[in-house]
Amino acid sequence: MAPMTAQGEEGAGAEMHALVERLYPLCRSITGDGVRTTLDIVGEYVPLRVHEVPTGTQVLDWTVPQEWNIRDAYIADPAGNRVVDFAASSLHVLGYSVPVSATMPLSELREHLHTLPDHPNWVPYRTSYYTPEWGFCLAQETLDALPDGEYEVRIDSTVADGHLTYAEHVVPGQVTDEVIVSCHVCHPSLANDNLAGIAVATFLARALAEQTPYYTYRFLFAPGTIGAITWLARNAERIDQVKHGLVLACAGDRGQLTYKQSRRGDAEIDRVMRHVLTASERPYRIVEFTPYGYDERQFCSPGFDLGVGSLSRTPYAGYPEYHTSADNPDFVSPGAMADTLAVCREACAVLDRNRRYRNLSPYGEPQLGRRGLYDALGGRSDTKQAQMAMLWVLSLSDGEHSLLGVAERSGLPFDTVAAAADALHRAGLIKA
Amino acid sequence: MAPMTAQGEEGAGAEMHALVERLYPLCRSITGDGVRTTLDIVGEYVPLRVHEVPTGTQVLDWTVPQEWNIRDAYIADPAGNRVVDFAASSLHVLGYSVPVSATMPLSELREHLHTLPDHPNWVPYRTSYYTPEWGFCLAQETLDALPDGEYEVRIDSTVADGHLTYAEHVVPGQVTDEVIVSCHVCHPSLANDNLAGIAVATFLARALAEQTPYYTYRFLFAPGTIGAITWLARNAERIDQVKHGLVLACAGDRGQLTYKQSRRGDAEIDRVMRHVLTASERPYRIVEFTPYGYDERQFCSPGFDLGVGSLSRTPYAGYPEYHTSADNPDFVSPGAMADTLAVCREACAVLDRNRRYRNLSPYGEPQLGRRGLYDALGGRSDTKQAQMAMLWVLSLSDGEHSLLGVAERSGLPFDTVAAAADALHRAGLIKA
Amino acid sequence: MAPMTAQGEEGAGAEMHALVERLYPLCRSITGDGVRTTLDIVGEYVPLRVHEVPTGTQVLDWTVPQEWNIRDAYIADPAGNRVVDFAASSLHVLGYSVPVSATMPLSELREHLHTLPDHPNWVPYRTSYYTPEWGFCLAQETLDALPDGEYEVRIDSTVADGHLTYAEHVVPGQVTDEVIVSCHVCHPSLANDNLAGIAVATFLARALAEQTPYYTYRFLFAPGTIGAITWLARNAERIDQVKHGLVLACAGDRGQLTYKQSRRGDAEIDRVMRHVLTASERPYRIVEFTPYGYDERQFCSPGFDLGVGSLSRTPYAGYPEYHTSADNPDFVSPGAMADTLAVCREACAVLDRNRRYRNLSPYGEPQLGRRGLYDALGGRSDTKQAQMAMLWVLSLSDGEHSLLGVAERSGLPFDTVAAAADALHRAGLIKA
Repeated sequence: MAPMTAQGEEGAGAEMHALVERLYPLCRSITGDGVRTTLDIVGEYVPLRVHEVPTGTQVLDWTVPQEWNIRDAYIADPAGNRVVDFAASSLHVLGYSVPVSATMPLSELREHLHTLPDHPNWVPYRTSYYTPEWGFCLAQETLDALPDGEYEVRIDSTVADGHLTYAEHVVPGQVTDEVIVSCHVCHPSLANDNLAGIAVATFLARALAEQTPYYTYRFLFAPGTIGAITWLARNAERIDQVKHGLVLACAGDRGQLTYKQSRRGDAEIDRVMRHVLTASERPYRIVEFTPYGYDERQFCSPGFDLGVGSLSRTPYAGYPEYHTSADNPDFVSPGAMADTLAVCREACAVLDRNRRYRNLSPYGEPQLGRRGLYDALGGRSDTKQAQMAMLWVLSLSDGEHSLLGVAERSGLPFDTVAAAADALHRAGLIKA
Repeated sequence: MAPMTAQGEEGAGAEMHALVERLYPLCRSITGDGVRTTLDIVGEYVPLRVHEVPTGTQVLDWTVPQEWNIRDAYIADPAGNRVVDFAASSLHVLGYSVPVSATMPLSELREHLHTLPDHPNWVPYRTSYYTPEWGFCLAQETLDALPDGEYEVRIDSTVADGHLTYAEHVVPGQVTDEVIVSCHVCHPSLANDNLAGIAVATFLARALAEQTPYYTYRFLFAPGTIGAITWLARNAERIDQVKHGLVLACAGDRGQLTYKQSRRGDAEIDRVMRHVLTASERPYRIVEFTPYGYDERQFCSPGFDLGVGSLSRTPYAGYPEYHTSADNPDFVSPGAMADTLAVCREACAVLDRNRRYRNLSPYGEPQLGRRGLYDALGGRSDTKQAQMAMLWVLSLSDGEHSLLGVAERSGLPFDTVAAAADALHRAGLIKA
Repeated sequence: MAPMTAQGEEGAGAEMHALVERLYPLCRSITGDGVRTTLDIVGEYVPLRVHEVPTGTQVLDWTVPQEWNIRDAYIADPAGNRVVDFAASSLHVLGYSVPVSATMPLSELREHLHTLPDHPNWVPYRTSYYTPEWGFCLAQETLDALPDGEYEVRIDSTVADGHLTYAEHVVPGQVTDEVIVSCHVCHPSLANDNLAGIAVATFLARALAEQTPYYTYRFLFAPGTIGAITWLARNAERIDQVKHGLVLACAGDRGQLTYKQSRRGDAEIDRVMRHVLTASERPYRIVEFTPYGYDERQFCSPGFDLGVGSLSRTPYAGYPEYHTSADNPDFVSPGAMADTLAVCREACAVLDRNRRYRNLSPYGEPQLGRRGLYDALGGRSDTKQAQMAMLWVLSLSDGEHSLLGVAERSGLPFDTVAAAADALHRAGLIKA
């Protein structure tokens, strides 16, 4: 296991970026050894339980597909030079390309080539999971420079029965109710989508483990769509325990944070994220749920309808580098990942402390002075806020309002409200 | 029956205007032969079932009044010239005037004369349904030009036991649940109020009959207030089948469309009209329910509280020509009536397709690709919207959201959402 | 009993100001003879039932404290001059000061002196109810002028078993359901906080008694916090009858009116005050409930959660003169107190007439003309509003909407709506 660093989030930012760089070259897809190696590396940071689900397994409305592996792939020009080479970037091969070994004129080859004419020196990312095909992705300017002639094309891949691989890491909590944190691990050499998400999830897990959290936190490292569907299919009995969740994606670019609400829109995680983002000085955006995006699509499907939102910086398809070779490790920054991690930690801290209390002395105000609850409280303006927080907690602890509700209605910081609740709880004035 | 024209709404605009011009000269009131002739003419366009309800019949809190008919009326000046003549305009006689045949000085006659001093060349529209009176309406400048002297006044009218007349036209639907479309037929020579409404209702009925609609549409051509009350009194057993309704009034002036919500404010017709008007490029106004206006007053009375709104262009009393001779056929335009008709048709189309579905594969997303639901779908940007619409329908088909609800939440056009639902329904993924 | 004046609110303003001036010199606290004398004087205006509750009595979470009385107090300088003298202002002594009789150097005395350096010629108001202490309050410029030397300090006070004193005045209504009007009587020589509140409460009681109100109005003159808690503790069986309430505080300064909503936020008193303030031409502010302020804290504690709001002009701590000698009779104006009183009276008038009716003819509109309900109604524009009000009352009298709800939805004045309801009620068209 990698050594734990000093807990400054800046240190974590550098470490997360190092993890992104290490994972970057691997060729991931929805199945295959690239996913396994990725999980091996993440497993150096947090212990993982890896699951292998055989091809053909029925998972909800889907079937686990055949496994794809690739060893080499290239296009050699008439002179024998490898003008496109998988060894240089995993993006060069259409994901799930079937094997090919052939010679053909450029005109015929062109039908299998994908470029981005608007960004002539970027390589696009393309896949064909469920329709057997082969293809290469390359820069438009590489394509433009190719002379006519016969080209050797070779993709040394296999699409064969095997397994779908995903992993879980659990941070045990004080209760068995769970918070799920999910990130997709199926994209090849793309840094923001989703190595940054993987890195933030990994370091969030490490941070939570520093002290036993209230909730049990389950981290899910799984291929997009089919991975989440597989997990949901295999954990039917556990779903009721999932109280909240967060999907992490595009977590490392320099844009402002974007929280996409759950389908419910008023789930506790939605309110928590709203409160955390509103209370912070950061610029941010909160957007409505849509049934497109990442694995919140599955967690929020109407049969499950879980309280799962999604945290990104610039969201999916919102930046030109999206799904291109320009989404490389330079595109994500240690500071941005550290910032995403900080917000995740704040949100977990609020979630973990958010309780519904009952005022045990609800008729009139209890006499706080007699209990020393005015004295026990530091400096002057702090004191005033702390006193107000106690009065608010007493006023709203009717079994209906959570501490987050108290914070929302009072406009006080959640921490102040939670501290007031702790003091009142110690004094026996409220009970959970 | 008048021949059906090509279905361009412009053609319909011209035809509706021709109908307005044909109905314009008739002297309508809440009872009498003017109403019967009006219904005869409308009956040339759509078959009508005409009802005759005897004077004295108890209808809810009201009693059907005596029938009013008028053959001739005039004021002759001292020289014997007819200076005000019913033959020139039905507005010249106070509605429900009792008969009179007398000679009197101008000073005495004045008490029975109604003018509009602010619009000296317009003739006002006045009635006295429930207090026996007689009177004439004329232009202020006509009055100003009258010399002193003895005037002959004659109103050859009868107020006697008879009937209240109204008519229904039904477009049968796939279900017996009904949409009511109502327009008042009691105003004499006033084009916007309400010959335009009659014309739009008539042509809406013809358009709906082109294919069997989902709902059964019942068109009601009845005098205002007492007519709607009579219909409600005689159709107590049918009320439960009335699911939606629209009152058409002031439907032909050149102002922007105005939708007045039902008393409930959130009835399906309210949401449909909001969606149709918001989605269109038209300027429009949506206003709250008030218990004053046209027959929505009766349909929305608290005992019935039906989901009935009202569609106008410039609403009741909102234009200076209201209830004057300036509300003539020139005041309404073929284009404006065609536009009102178009919105009515769009609203009916949404109403008719608005269902609540249940996702039969609600756990995770169903695999759409396997069912060809990505291929079956035309051009590129269309495809994207169609796919989003399918995901939205799947996400929200929980038995709570209608397709209109899906359109509202997703911001997608209703048509796209409904087409997606059709595709999913054919694929067996949702059921109604 | 003081003679009742002409009912012009201006006259009442002058009388209220006279009452403030009369009460101003008294040294009030949460117990003691100052409270008793205050209640004696108020009792000259409205009959009071005075309650004496012994020291040591348990009241909810609190205990009635010992009684404090003071006869004299001063600081004499080395030359023997009384430089601070209780006889000049009751503010000069720290409330609940224990007795002291000593000579000490200025340096030692300073620890017991309270000033306002930012307002060097104002005397602050300070208390120490539950921690035994003694002290003096004085102007900073008085303190600055004191020469070094030995000072004689003397406080001739007693803190001893006795009673807590409060009083009630009841205006009997047509029903036993109660409205509570509460004002704190525990502050010494401070005019706005709360002699103005006492004066407005007193004159409101007199005004209500002029005719039997619908509700029974209970006026509570009690020390802040401990007084309200004592009343609540001793009236447990009566709480269910308290339907609405208003706490009056800071009711006489020249600032705009401020209504602080009850904890519930949508209590009837909240809606009434919103309506009255919105309908008036006055500037005003409506603020959310907070669990800090005056005795609404106790009435709105979660166990009681009564519909009690608070009416002030500039609220607590919102003006620099707050809790200083600058809050003197000049700080409050007859006009401001009259204005506060007028709003209280309007609010009571709305509360008292606010009923929920049921339309007895809910199917279609009843024929109002037949019942003379169009004739019975004065001038032209009045008539129109009165007719609209009748239609609105008929439309919304479904057992769900109160007259206030009708006024809110229709935008009509409450009086017009209530008059329409009276007319309809007389005609047998609605029942309560």
